[in-house]
Amino acid sequence: MPFNKITSADVTFFKTILEEKYVLADEENLDRCASDQTEDLHYLPEIVLQPNTTEEISSIMKYCNEHNIPVTPRGAGTGLSGGALPVHGGVSLDMKRLNRILHVDKRNFQVTTEPGVITQELQEHLKAEGLFYPPDPASKGSCFIGGNVSENSGGPRAVKYGVVKDYVLNIEMVLPNGEIMWTGANVLKNATGYNITQLVVGSEGTLGVITKIVLRLIPAVKHDLLLLVPFRSATEACEAVNAIFLGGYTPSALEFMERDALEWSMRYVNSTGIDLPDDIAAHLLIEVDGNHMEELYRDAEAISAIVQPYDIGEILFADSHEQKQMLWTLRRKVGEAVKSNSIYKEEDTVVPRAELPELLRIIKDLGREYGFQSVCYGHAGDGNLHVNIVKGNMSDEAWNTKLTLGIRRLFKEVVRMGGTISGEHGIGLVQKEYMDIAFPEVQLQLMRQIKQVFDPKGILNPGKILMNA
Amino acid sequence: MPFNKITSADVTFFKTILEEKYVLADEENLDRCASDQTEDLHYLPEIVLQPNTTEEISSIMKYCNEHNIPVTPRGAGTGLSGGALPVHGGVSLDMKRLNRILHVDKRNFQVTTEPGVITQELQEHLKAEGLFYPPDPASKGSCFIGGNVSENSGGPRAVKYGVVKDYVLNIEMVLPNGEIMWTGANVLKNATGYNITQLVVGSEGTLGVITKIVLRLIPAVKHDLLLLVPFRSATEACEAVNAIFLGGYTPSALEFMERDALEWSMRYVNSTGIDLPDDIAAHLLIEVDGNHMEELYRDAEAISAIVQPYDIGEILFADSHEQKQMLWTLRRKVGEAVKSNSIYKEEDTVVPRAELPELLRIIKDLGREYGFQSVCYGHAGDGNLHVNIVKGNMSDEAWNTKLTLGIRRLFKEVVRMGGTISGEHGIGLVQKEYMDIAFPEVQLQLMRQIKQVFDPKGILNPGKILMNA
Repeated sequence: MPFNKITSADVTFFKTILEEKYVLADEENLDRCASDQTEDLHYLPEIVLQPNTTEEISSIMKYCNEHNIPVTPRGAGTGLSGGALPVHGGVSLDMKRLNRILHVDKRNFQVTTEPGVITQELQEHLKAEGLFYPPDPASKGSCFIGGNVSENSGGPRAVKYGVVKDYVLNIEMVLPNGEIMWTGANVLKNATGYNITQLVVGSEGTLGVITKIVLRLIPAVKHDLLLLVPFRSATEACEAVNAIFLGGYTPSALEFMERDALEWSMRYVNSTGIDLPDDIAAHLLIEVDGNHMEELYRDAEAISAIVQPYDIGEILFADSHEQKQMLWTLRRKVGEAVKSNSIYKEEDTVVPRAELPELLRIIKDLGREYGFQSVCYGHAGDGNLHVNIVKGNMSDEAWNTKLTLGIRRLFKEVVRMGGTISGEHGIGLVQKEYMDIAFPEVQLQLMRQIKQVFDPKGILNPGKILMNA
Repeated sequence: MPFNKITSADVTFFKTILEEKYVLADEENLDRCASDQTEDLHYLPEIVLQPNTTEEISSIMKYCNEHNIPVTPRGAGTGLSGGALPVHGGVSLDMKRLNRILHVDKRNFQVTTEPGVITQELQEHLKAEGLFYPPDPASKGSCFIGGNVSENSGGPRAVKYGVVKDYVLNIEMVLPNGEIMWTGANVLKNATGYNITQLVVGSEGTLGVITKIVLRLIPAVKHDLLLLVPFRSATEACEAVNAIFLGGYTPSALEFMERDALEWSMRYVNSTGIDLPDDIAAHLLIEVDGNHMEELYRDAEAISAIVQPYDIGEILFADSHEQKQMLWTLRRKVGEAVKSNSIYKEEDTVVPRAELPELLRIIKDLGREYGFQSVCYGHAGDGNLHVNIVKGNMSDEAWNTKLTLGIRRLFKEVVRMGGTISGEHGIGLVQKEYMDIAFPEVQLQLMRQIKQVFDPKGILNPGKILMNA
């Protein structure tokens, strides 16, 4: 069914639901909502709406559903797969005003929050109460918790604490037709009907608009220690990742950075804090956490002993707050640094952890074959490697046509290894053309039909996840 | 669409797929597959098929789908909500021959198994390799891992380690039309399309037949300690549960047993191992685990100090293998013991943990009002309380009509507290009439449509989860 363009009658209706200042069609707001952090993509919405309540969203959805107007929910715009881009125009549903932490239930280790709360602010608010919400995407200082739920985000701590889906107990959502419902219950165990909660987590705003989230929490952890281990061989760094787990240790972060990643990040943030000898090819950033310092020192020493047989440089033990901050800033800024350097595409490959060395080898081989340079880094403890393909000197023609073939080759290898094409960034707009590599047609058809169950007219975040969606 | 009865032509076809000895219509096998561990229910299938491979199941499903023959998958028959009962006759698909552990991937901490493996045997096989699969339902010595996945089972360790859904990475399934597919990938993080894996976990054999399961594993834990704490007030026992978590401790098990539960279990297994003074109203069974004994002693002592201010009897510290075995046997046998005592109904209520004292009070109040006796026990650390309602001296009329109203009242209170009607047993046959308490019609309608997407003709495990399904 073709979508309708927004008319002045529609705008008049929106102004009966929202105050005029929250119905926006100025260039600045349209432009702001046309992009996220995905490549250099730009899709203008026709209007930006900033609702404040579930009921307002319900009214907007009901109206847009009846009038065939596409609606694209938008969090903080930090997405890396284009999930918030209004590729068919229509309404950009800007969730920033739903930014209240509604209830911290300390007795039950739960929080009920609206989706427009910045993840780090939520974490800090909870920490002050002795509570801990672990998932921490690199963009935690600016991303919204609602976007994290929509994309099933990860982050460095996922290796020990799991990803967003492991913390979501219950979701209030507005269906495309305007109906409001809770998906589950505020409980740690639930065997009551189909798991709609987990179906909505990671559905990238295509099944409903998330308006409230109940998260389970754990007791705050008191201490952590951070190690930076330089390797002369990137392959050996990947191999060491598995050795640590086989040794019986589960760090609270286990991050891999190719030399270029760290070097570009240091340049980007103007840091000289780390000595980077010419023969160092990659680093592992390893964090351990717990409530007893003596145990952390014991674990850190044991992990050092495990990596010692590899060809490594001098291990940096960071136990001051400043040193730890500096190292984490460098890690978190890698993405931005790479992006500031060149036109790029970022892939979010994930494989069974022990296959990392093989994955790295394949990426570099494909780079030589297709003529691209890559900077790899990511959550090695989860087998989740971000591959930044930089355009550098590639011709536009090679970039726009040949590269896609190289990415298809890469994804096929990833799937052959038991992995898949996105670990934490989602499919959104930019990966949907590769979904046939991850899934057979029978499963894609199931997904299309599930989308249709929730959104029969296809008005909610159209053009995402599935081809022809 | 009405189902067809199985004809001799159908039997002839089944014998082209399976050897004759695996196409069973004798009284003993039909009778065996007519029941599970749910109350005293009995629904005869028309035939029992015992396939050995995914491909055989695919052929059976394709045929039954074309011929409108209902198919009900069956694991070990230990279910507590009637999920395996062939309420519309047809085929009982007995999964016992798919009992191979296919691949222990020690490098990646994963196992690929068929569904007909007994959970405890899988755990022991993995433990010998230094690997740990935590979920341990009370029936672990006889239940199948496939049934555990179908019901999203829990068990005592869920409080620290999570339930089955937290370990399932990927599932091979046969759709009702015979198509075979994998739901996900063998990875720890996955943001690739809708989470079909989590939709299938806990779907009680209504969306597809599970034929292979990939589970994530963790390193084996070396030590544990067990404490049995007697309380003079059952309410105080429930209150102590929350105090332990607020103290910053996460035991590896935190089980609640009313006095009757323990007393009946001791009588059932002929045990005199525990002294049970007349003034004791309930017990908490508390386990801590880890790799360093000194830490466990420290944690056990801290937990003892937390429960000390309550009105408790003498704490039993079990550190010998025999004592621990004895206590766990008593706990695991409570269900059977209660069932051997009287006609009963078992409810599987779950609430936010801190609401447990209130839940217990409501159950006893309702019991007085509706004239039923109840024996409560369960996974208090998760807020999951099993309520065994025993018929005792209730009239048949009160049992068959009035009681349902009492259970509806109970479930409404549970939902009001933020809880739901099943924590780990599933809805299956016996709880489906209460689903309208847990969910509004809009969500039940979504569930019906999801069922329809997977099983348009409704032949797979009909009559479960949803009314009119």
